[in-house]
Amino acid sequence: MEVDHLADERSKAQFDVEEMKIVWAGSRHAFQVSDRIARLVASDPAFQKDHRARLGRKELFKNTLRKAAYAWKRINELRLTEEEASRLRFFVDEPAFTDLHWGMFVPAIKGQGTEEQQQKWLPLAHKMQIIGCYAQTELGHGSNVQGLETTATFDPQTDEFIIHSPTLTSSKWWPGGLGKVATHGVIYARLLTNGQEHGVHGFIVQIRSLDDHLPLPGITVGDIGIKFGSGAYNTMDNGVLRFDQVRIPRNQMLMRVSQVTREGKVVQSDVPRQLVYGTMVFVRKTIVGDASNALSRAVCIATRYSAVRRQFGSQKGGLETQVIDYKTQQNRLFPLLASAYAFRVVGEWMEWLYTDVTQRLKANDFSTLPEVHACTAGLKSLTTSATADGIEECRKLCGGHGYLHSSGLPELFAVYVPACTYEGDNIVLLLQVARFLMKTVSQLGSGKKAVGTTAYMGRVEQLMQCRCDVQNAEDWLKPSIVMEAFEARATRMSVACARNLSKFGNQEEGFLELSADLVEVAVAHCQLIVVSKFIEKLQQDIPGKGVKNQLENLCSVYALNILHKHLGDFLSTGCITPMQASLANDQLRSLYSQVRPNAVALVDAFNYTDHFLSSILGRYDGNVYPKLYEDAWKDPLNDSIVPDGFHEYVQPILKQQLRNAKL
Amino acid sequence: MEVDHLADERSKAQFDVEEMKIVWAGSRHAFQVSDRIARLVASDPAFQKDHRARLGRKELFKNTLRKAAYAWKRINELRLTEEEASRLRFFVDEPAFTDLHWGMFVPAIKGQGTEEQQQKWLPLAHKMQIIGCYAQTELGHGSNVQGLETTATFDPQTDEFIIHSPTLTSSKWWPGGLGKVATHGVIYARLLTNGQEHGVHGFIVQIRSLDDHLPLPGITVGDIGIKFGSGAYNTMDNGVLRFDQVRIPRNQMLMRVSQVTREGKVVQSDVPRQLVYGTMVFVRKTIVGDASNALSRAVCIATRYSAVRRQFGSQKGGLETQVIDYKTQQNRLFPLLASAYAFRVVGEWMEWLYTDVTQRLKANDFSTLPEVHACTAGLKSLTTSATADGIEECRKLCGGHGYLHSSGLPELFAVYVPACTYEGDNIVLLLQVARFLMKTVSQLGSGKKAVGTTAYMGRVEQLMQCRCDVQNAEDWLKPSIVMEAFEARATRMSVACARNLSKFGNQEEGFLELSADLVEVAVAHCQLIVVSKFIEKLQQDIPGKGVKNQLENLCSVYALNILHKHLGDFLSTGCITPMQASLANDQLRSLYSQVRPNAVALVDAFNYTDHFLSSILGRYDGNVYPKLYEDAWKDPLNDSIVPDGFHEYVQPILKQQLRNAKL
Repeated sequence: MEVDHLADERSKAQFDVEEMKIVWAGSRHAFQVSDRIARLVASDPAFQKDHRARLGRKELFKNTLRKAAYAWKRINELRLTEEEASRLRFFVDEPAFTDLHWGMFVPAIKGQGTEEQQQKWLPLAHKMQIIGCYAQTELGHGSNVQGLETTATFDPQTDEFIIHSPTLTSSKWWPGGLGKVATHGVIYARLLTNGQEHGVHGFIVQIRSLDDHLPLPGITVGDIGIKFGSGAYNTMDNGVLRFDQVRIPRNQMLMRVSQVTREGKVVQSDVPRQLVYGTMVFVRKTIVGDASNALSRAVCIATRYSAVRRQFGSQKGGLETQVIDYKTQQNRLFPLLASAYAFRVVGEWMEWLYTDVTQRLKANDFSTLPEVHACTAGLKSLTTSATADGIEECRKLCGGHGYLHSSGLPELFAVYVPACTYEGDNIVLLLQVARFLMKTVSQLGSGKKAVGTTAYMGRVEQLMQCRCDVQNAEDWLKPSIVMEAFEARATRMSVACARNLSKFGNQEEGFLELSADLVEVAVAHCQLIVVSKFIEKLQQDIPGKGVKNQLENLCSVYALNILHKHLGDFLSTGCITPMQASLANDQLRSLYSQVRPNAVALVDAFNYTDHFLSSILGRYDGNVYPKLYEDAWKDPLNDSIVPDGFHEYVQPILKQQLRNAKL
Repeated sequence: MEVDHLADERSKAQFDVEEMKIVWAGSRHAFQVSDRIARLVASDPAFQKDHRARLGRKELFKNTLRKAAYAWKRINELRLTEEEASRLRFFVDEPAFTDLHWGMFVPAIKGQGTEEQQQKWLPLAHKMQIIGCYAQTELGHGSNVQGLETTATFDPQTDEFIIHSPTLTSSKWWPGGLGKVATHGVIYARLLTNGQEHGVHGFIVQIRSLDDHLPLPGITVGDIGIKFGSGAYNTMDNGVLRFDQVRIPRNQMLMRVSQVTREGKVVQSDVPRQLVYGTMVFVRKTIVGDASNALSRAVCIATRYSAVRRQFGSQKGGLETQVIDYKTQQNRLFPLLASAYAFRVVGEWMEWLYTDVTQRLKANDFSTLPEVHACTAGLKSLTTSATADGIEECRKLCGGHGYLHSSGLPELFAVYVPACTYEGDNIVLLLQVARFLMKTVSQLGSGKKAVGTTAYMGRVEQLMQCRCDVQNAEDWLKPSIVMEAFEARATRMSVACARNLSKFGNQEEGFLELSADLVEVAVAHCQLIVVSKFIEKLQQDIPGKGVKNQLENLCSVYALNILHKHLGDFLSTGCITPMQASLANDQLRSLYSQVRPNAVALVDAFNYTDHFLSSILGRYDGNVYPKLYEDAWKDPLNDSIVPDGFHEYVQPILKQQLRNAKL
């Protein structure tokens, strides 16, 4: 008989959890697909996750190959749609070469290949008759794509490119799926033709034989070794790759935008270069969505366990207090819960943004691109940094037991943190945002209108002067007041930074010197975007008893927590007074009390299966202690009562016979 | 021929690195011991660290047993002193059961055992004829020691205690060395005698047979399973332990303070209970020292690699810019470098504090104890939290390559983070500090003098009113100005919080409600302690060309970075103005420029061997890329060109034969 140790918590909820599940998923359809596929995966023994951390690298990797093959088999057997297949891979929850094949290789060909190239390669890729990877970064080069060293030299004699790694640092390094599996890759290299350089381009290169899987002549390839954590990303074969004068036909350069003619001339097609932005927005919206997935998962674990765990506060042998009842716990946990919802809302908005950008690109309207680029870069940076920190905070919120692999949090952290680095290092991205903001400020007087997420800067005069109206704590619940405070802060910081920049004779020098301040300006702007999108969402009709009210509370928690954490910004720019800051804090505390009874239900709304969470602390039924105890005995060290090595290494110590021991 | 890729960096240093090594080590003697033992360990193949992450749990553990035995053998062969032996274990750098034997079991007997008990048990422990652990926490109980459930019931019939685990949650859980190795443990249990409870006490309990190492009757014991990271703390056998009515002689209760008589009466000895504080200070000073060890290690890796790594900024094919030259990098890295030095200085001061407390205890002077308790609790919390975050920040500062296990940072992080939880959860400790501060504030009018690290509060009237004198950026270099700003901030936050508390009818209720604010007050106080101890250190004579100047820069970086990060505190309490905050930022930037040429030399001063660092990115010679490349090929996945599992799981995908594949 199964007992729900959290039933009492669930009965306290003041809203319709089933309706909140729809909100979280984005639509009823999305919920139904996710729910069905999650159950399908969870109930299939072939997908079970147990023991992953106990496997050596080879066994681990082999097991991942098995799961990937099995997943592909099921996708075909069940004739899953693309959406369903993608959910299935998501719920299998094990990084694998297929992620790069579907997530990077196929989109690169779609985005950068000509019609002809797409017709040739996509059918092969779609059936997985070839398996692709995406090889951009090199041992010595990451963020600076223009610094890549790999060369692709056109040989007009044979109508081929010669792909070559001229130095050790030009070795391709990191691409997932490359190490042991991929048969092909989109390889980025500097194009050289007729003795001239033409920047970095993508090339389809076959890496391994389709017969015996051996690397083709001139190719050295392997895995780059173990990464952070046990299990975690070690299921992926991130690879190293060197080329020794490898020849490929000319038509394997991805030529949708730039083409190399038979004579070796580089010509631009009539397809606009800006197309690449569409892909960029697509990738970044996915990353923001992933952030809300990862953070919500950690928050789900920490919230449920905080309701199970009791410590201190017992009255004479009675039950101790649930740790979720402590304000210190709430003050750390609830802002993360709010962030998970906030990032979900932002991710949803980015779906709209992607559609909008795609339509504009089709109509040759590039006017919004710089703003969209800055906005999505900033949101990628903001959400992934907050999520990485948030997962570790959730682990700490679980006390000692959070350190156990079986809590699920160490592996979640180790798998997640690369998101802060890949697809643009988070600090580098924030500097790009800042650059755009400085440009926007400099054009404010010129009549050029600030658009999209920077539109508020059009009201610069008002925002430089406005005074916050808050007179009591409840005033901080008003969206207009919160918005104005965040807008004023971002504007004033931008303007102040622009002024400081103008003191430098050389703009670029000033930008380098003030870059730490510029990063803070970018963060202020991005936090404003998140707050504003959350507030906009709440202006819509949201069905379901109490659902909207919960989201309003979370939105306020998100905003007021940021206000408190970045109080220096708000005070130094005179956007609010110390007394108003103190009222915001009072309001925040009162919001925590309102979130408290709904906390467990709010994480239930994520609709995660126990299989997906893979956390004993986060179990739906809260049956934590018996399961921790049971799990301990499965460790390989407990295979025998007396451990391997005891007789050789411990016994001689105890018996004082170390002198003659062979060690 | 070996090339030092960082020679150019080293030549830029403006101070005497050898003298700084002495400062870092604490004394010439300490430096010499450390240096000699570090080299001894590094040069001995038996201690090599390679491949730890590639081992399965059993092999990993067995290897640790081997190293621990070998270390003990060498300690005996070389007749090492206690100090040397402890350094040797430190440089072996692999968590093992011996850490708990020497660090917890032996000190517990020394601190809590009677003379007679010490004479019986210590010689056995010193020769390792028995191996001990320290079993306090339980599956359901950590921070709240008084909530432990294990019972020790006195049976007057047989003159024995019956040790028992009445519930599942009373299972001992976490003690290191318990899982597979310890023969004995100091076990904490509720003392029951004559039907009455007498709180929690320690008992020496034999766990395993000294003959065949099997658990004694009534004892269930095992390892609790895999923890965070690969390698990392998985070398330790953290254990689970249950007692089913296990009998031990009465004289195995640790009876230095409380005794149970033959009749079962509990009597207090004339030894003061406060003795336990001595041990507490000892443990905490060790933890603070460990924080500076761990943080300095991460900073050493990140600094050297930041000098090797280049990205962006090349002029037409020239060398790219060293990432350490970017202000964004400096703004994240140099405050961590400064923190490592700051924590070193604080750790040194705590050595003095420990001596002072020990002497006072001997003289029955308990007057400073509450302040010492609060101060050491706060410093443990502050330094371990900052170090855990700092290690991860260093990993991010190493970009993508920091994610490789061979960077050394993932394992360092995974090994380190438990320090935030063990020996007092960091938030729980800060609340204890806050409680003491509130008490101090409430007694300010009463004539009771604020002592030690709270002495500044005696000047409450001045500190509530003072105005910061800073008029230009350089003013922020004056110790008196920095001190006053930090003192005013801590005082004003304390006083404000005390006022808010007084509004509650019930003090305890107010304390719970305002606990998040109280934590911030405690942090402000602890940061002041660190700043003040660093400044005090600089008032001493420090020999060596340029050494003191470097430390002054680091001290200013530490203080001004905190000021910036916690600007809201300083502004909302009116301690400084926004303009002064901006000047502090200017000064900080200018300090970064002064630290920059000395950065590599400042981490060289830690005197870490490449063996100890175990980081390819942090190599002394900076020869990063060839070594990363070389190391990759050692991964087990590269044992074969075609990976295990290819034929079963990848080939059928490529050949479209998945339908019939056995998966």
